[in-house]
Amino acid sequence: MNDLAITPADIEAAAQRLHGVAHRTPVLTSHTANTRAGAQVFFKCENFQRMGAFKFRGAYNALAQFTPEQRLGGVIAFSSGNHAQAIALSARLLGMPSVIVMPADSPAAKLAATREYQQGQAHSEVVLYDRYTQDREAIGRQLAAERGMTLIPPYDHPHVMAGQGTAAAELLAETGALDLLLVCVGGGGLISGCAVAAHQQSPGIQVIGVEPEAGNDTQQSLARGEIVHIDTPKTIADGAQTQRSGDLTFPVIQRLVKGIVTVSDAQLVRTMKFFAERMKMVVEPTGCLGAAALLEGVVQARGQRVGVIVSGGNVDMARYADFLSSD
Amino acid sequence: MNDLAITPADIEAAAQRLHGVAHRTPVLTSHTANTRAGAQVFFKCENFQRMGAFKFRGAYNALAQFTPEQRLGGVIAFSSGNHAQAIALSARLLGMPSVIVMPADSPAAKLAATREYQQGQAHSEVVLYDRYTQDREAIGRQLAAERGMTLIPPYDHPHVMAGQGTAAAELLAETGALDLLLVCVGGGGLISGCAVAAHQQSPGIQVIGVEPEAGNDTQQSLARGEIVHIDTPKTIADGAQTQRSGDLTFPVIQRLVKGIVTVSDAQLVRTMKFFAERMKMVVEPTGCLGAAALLEGVVQARGQRVGVIVSGGNVDMARYADFLSSD
Repeated sequence: MNDLAITPADIEAAAQRLHGVAHRTPVLTSHTANTRAGAQVFFKCENFQRMGAFKFRGAYNALAQFTPEQRLGGVIAFSSGNHAQAIALSARLLGMPSVIVMPADSPAAKLAATREYQQGQAHSEVVLYDRYTQDREAIGRQLAAERGMTLIPPYDHPHVMAGQGTAAAELLAETGALDLLLVCVGGGGLISGCAVAAHQQSPGIQVIGVEPEAGNDTQQSLARGEIVHIDTPKTIADGAQTQRSGDLTFPVIQRLVKGIVTVSDAQLVRTMKFFAERMKMVVEPTGCLGAAALLEGVVQARGQRVGVIVSGGNVDMARYADFLSSD
Repeated sequence: MNDLAITPADIEAAAQRLHGVAHRTPVLTSHTANTRAGAQVFFKCENFQRMGAFKFRGAYNALAQFTPEQRLGGVIAFSSGNHAQAIALSARLLGMPSVIVMPADSPAAKLAATREYQQGQAHSEVVLYDRYTQDREAIGRQLAAERGMTLIPPYDHPHVMAGQGTAAAELLAETGALDLLLVCVGGGGLISGCAVAAHQQSPGIQVIGVEPEAGNDTQQSLARGEIVHIDTPKTIADGAQTQRSGDLTFPVIQRLVKGIVTVSDAQLVRTMKFFAERMKMVVEPTGCLGAAALLEGVVQARGQRVGVIVSGGNVDMARYADFLSSD
């Protein structure tokens, strides 16, 4: 794996940095899930991670490796999703400023949550931009230059990828060898880190990625042998509305991921209900991708030991209530 | 504690019986909860227990101690709630018949869930009765006589109480000594078992019970020094709609529980939202009692190490969606 962006040693080092800072999230099982899949299923519950998603792992691992100069300047990130909150929280824990650049029309709850994570940390703020008239890259470049800030992207960064891989590393340390690991795919940060960890700890494991039907760019990319760029997909899985894999994540996926399957929004909603009703967990639509592929029969795993990464649980409560009460 | 219905040794024996059968449920923490309470809070998540509530512990512990003759006859229980499902599942696991006597107007989902747990177990059924015209005690006595079945009550039984106590035993084994333990109170099976375990494993701990405002029979009973009987209370905490403490549970509560506080239905709904939004957990109204007392400021615990038993997560999804979307 030497020519890939990360190695198993990077993930072990990330695990050291995260020790005592990130939650070691529980691995839960369900007799109903086992029966339905005809398999032994282990859910790694990153919805119980700090700030509600695996993104904390990668963000903290990246920021913890800043030089003293970088710490002084702080971190900048573009995001209206889980990456924003992960960066804001990690920066505060490490005592550095953070600027999160978000669209002015982001949901009020997300703005509030991000600001809450920045609380008490000097020189930290949310900078709003008009997504129709302003260029967020230009805003970012200007802020970075003026304030000496370092940009951390949401997935295409070795430290981010290595941090995300600790989720699979913890899962496998708890379960022992698995036959199959199902991971949701957006930009590929989570699955690339998890694939490296999984192949190290469980030789022979098959890692399969799951994308929303409407946003199967990585599936297309694997078929074409090069990164395919798509329009922003329309799906309830907002964490997987990426337009393309990363330059660093895609080669890892090519090498270590067996294949990509897709699931529909209707399958995600049914899986969200399954998690609420049977496993008593709030899981956001993106977090349901891996489980949906298994429970809806898209992936066959009869008789196998299967790991599923449940990536996060950040979903607006009114929207969530609508999902639960829909037919 | 020699004159009480259960001893710490009974709880240890129950833990042995439940080992590998019950889930060892996770203990979760939340920075937001800690901040709000000014305390270090440990949530013992029995909503992740088999069949979705702590009730499995007591039911299985009772049925596992049946004599060969009792096993042959099987178990009978009156319940439309978590006790029904706990008995049905435990009986199937132990290979004995179960008859659950439920009101004919029970929610269809509860009937279906109970029948699902009985699946594949011969001579097992749900017997419906008309709660306005029929005497369920008479039905039960007749069935017990005809079929040689043993009645297991939902809380007032030493084996049930000892089983429930394993929840606190596991919590304290994981957290070490605590200053305070908050437990919901219906008939007193959970809190009596937990109080015995807690005082054994964490001398000096204060155990406080939490009842719904509308159904504070145990609070009244403690004040009067004898068991007070109330009308079935109107509260969303359906697991705590009991009319009186048990003859076996009350003496334990008198001896080992520091006091009882109450919370309103509105406080339960806010706590249910807190669990969903911040901790990504589905918790039924009754399961919110302990946490509500702490997070709503009914109990002060600044600077303390606090355990909270989250008793269950069985709530109809349509009703749950309504709670989440209410103001």
